[in-house]
Amino acid sequence: METDRVLIVDGAEHHVWNREVFEMLRAGDISAVTVTCAIWENAREALEDLGHWNRRFEEQSDLILKANTVEDIRSAHEQKKTAIILGFQNTSPIEDNIDFVGIFAALGVRVMQLTYNNQNLVGSGCYEPHDGGLTTFGRDLIKEMNQHGVLVDMSHTGERTSMDTIEVSSKPVAITHANPKFIKNTQRNKSDDMLRALADSAGVLGLAVYPHLFAYDATVEQFCEMVARTVDLMGIEHVGIGSDHHLGFSADEKKFWVQGRFSRSVPSFMTSQGFLSSDWDGEDVEWASWIETPAGMPNIVRGLKEHGFSPQEVEAIMGGNWLRLFEETFAN
Amino acid sequence: METDRVLIVDGAEHHVWNREVFEMLRAGDISAVTVTCAIWENAREALEDLGHWNRRFEEQSDLILKANTVEDIRSAHEQKKTAIILGFQNTSPIEDNIDFVGIFAALGVRVMQLTYNNQNLVGSGCYEPHDGGLTTFGRDLIKEMNQHGVLVDMSHTGERTSMDTIEVSSKPVAITHANPKFIKNTQRNKSDDMLRALADSAGVLGLAVYPHLFAYDATVEQFCEMVARTVDLMGIEHVGIGSDHHLGFSADEKKFWVQGRFSRSVPSFMTSQGFLSSDWDGEDVEWASWIETPAGMPNIVRGLKEHGFSPQEVEAIMGGNWLRLFEETFAN
Repeated sequence: METDRVLIVDGAEHHVWNREVFEMLRAGDISAVTVTCAIWENAREALEDLGHWNRRFEEQSDLILKANTVEDIRSAHEQKKTAIILGFQNTSPIEDNIDFVGIFAALGVRVMQLTYNNQNLVGSGCYEPHDGGLTTFGRDLIKEMNQHGVLVDMSHTGERTSMDTIEVSSKPVAITHANPKFIKNTQRNKSDDMLRALADSAGVLGLAVYPHLFAYDATVEQFCEMVARTVDLMGIEHVGIGSDHHLGFSADEKKFWVQGRFSRSVPSFMTSQGFLSSDWDGEDVEWASWIETPAGMPNIVRGLKEHGFSPQEVEAIMGGNWLRLFEETFAN
Repeated sequence: METDRVLIVDGAEHHVWNREVFEMLRAGDISAVTVTCAIWENAREALEDLGHWNRRFEEQSDLILKANTVEDIRSAHEQKKTAIILGFQNTSPIEDNIDFVGIFAALGVRVMQLTYNNQNLVGSGCYEPHDGGLTTFGRDLIKEMNQHGVLVDMSHTGERTSMDTIEVSSKPVAITHANPKFIKNTQRNKSDDMLRALADSAGVLGLAVYPHLFAYDATVEQFCEMVARTVDLMGIEHVGIGSDHHLGFSADEKKFWVQGRFSRSVPSFMTSQGFLSSDWDGEDVEWASWIETPAGMPNIVRGLKEHGFSPQEVEAIMGGNWLRLFEETFAN
């Protein structure tokens, strides 16, 4: 029994999934990760992606398993496998049909982000010039997600829509991958007010190593300093990791994330906010040396210990807080 | 304990589903029925229909339950409820993606008919002038259905495609609703060769009360005579009921079954075969007085007894044979 083996949960990764990546997750001893099965995709396209996952669960069962429940995550940890939590980064697969929440929940989707960057049927994204808050459909959708054991994610959601969400949701919610604005003042990061409201409602924030949301050439010590400052703001029970790590995508695939099918170029709201330059062409991001791949996650465990967090605090940050939130939200 | 209460399974009904119809099923003491969630519908539309069923399972749980396993059917029988077996009358919801078999199976679909009347990606329908047999995709699809516990149905499938199916399928298959050609010589009904091949492969035929496939103004005695002649051909273990009863549809809805989205009028292959006249306009069918609604099913039980079938034979025909086939095919 390795008593000092920390159960690591990553709130958000999005790779071109293949055996090599699963081996990186294992090298990082990551026991659970929330993956992205849809960004702009509709119902049919999301079903296709779930189909790919079903094949991976069959073919790579020595490395991964499907996380239907928190018990599956604990079981993965014991078996030294990675539990895959199926997630959407948009409600686009729900299209206009509230019944599809239950349909996708039955297929194993456990996390749904309300909006991705811009306005949709549910609410406003973080890069919309105007955030009109949750729509009528959005309000009903959150109740449906609560009922079907789907965790509500607000990572790319606008502030007013997020505040409405916290008010409407009967279950705690998450920001699976974002950083505080006090670290880097971009629209994608979160205000102190937002983070306090998230903590007050028993939610969890996953802190991101993604340089656009943090800093280029940052050290693991700087990352752990961000963790500490966020814990000071939110409390130890409300901070986790959501690395937002992504590997293997082509420039065109990355441009699809930004432009979807709605724009021929980088949307003006992203360039005007300085998130991307208007001549951005899907270039790869430079990951810091201590987290070049998800295999670097144990560097954060070490960094947190060296920063002075107790073993219990390190466990909470690295996975315990996510598990508590999943227990309260997933259908079991 | 009502020892003489026969467990009744109807291999195919397709109504405008509402409480009144579920009460008819209960009045007929029908313990399980296979319903139609798609005829020409694509993946998204089939998901919508499954969404409607999820609501019905919630809202009408005093009358119905979802049949995931044979155990659920036995449980429904004990509780005097009706177990709903979700089925497709076409592989149209699979579209061109073999993974969707597993997706729909995970959502509870237990029966899929390969083709509906005409040619599709999988094979030929019974009203095609030329039956080219199972396609390459069709052959893979059947293996996938076998693996995911989905019963293969050939009711509206052409003869050559059906013969291919029996050869390819590793599990026994069904004709959930059709009659022998020797009763009524229409393209939708089945040849002696077909029925013998079905019986030889441990499959089951559901005999239909639908007048187009049987006779207008037929008596229950005539129906039971058809059962007896079919048992003589196929053996007692291979004959069940698949009433093909349908109530409540508008003329336009019924025209959709016949014309789908591929034709502006009744397809010529149906008029040339005499199944429907070219001026057919979706008129309602006249159901015989003893089976005006599914509540008339016990009349068949009585009729079979009066015809001289033993209690064990009546049980096999009314539901036992279906249960045996479901045990061998459904994923448990």
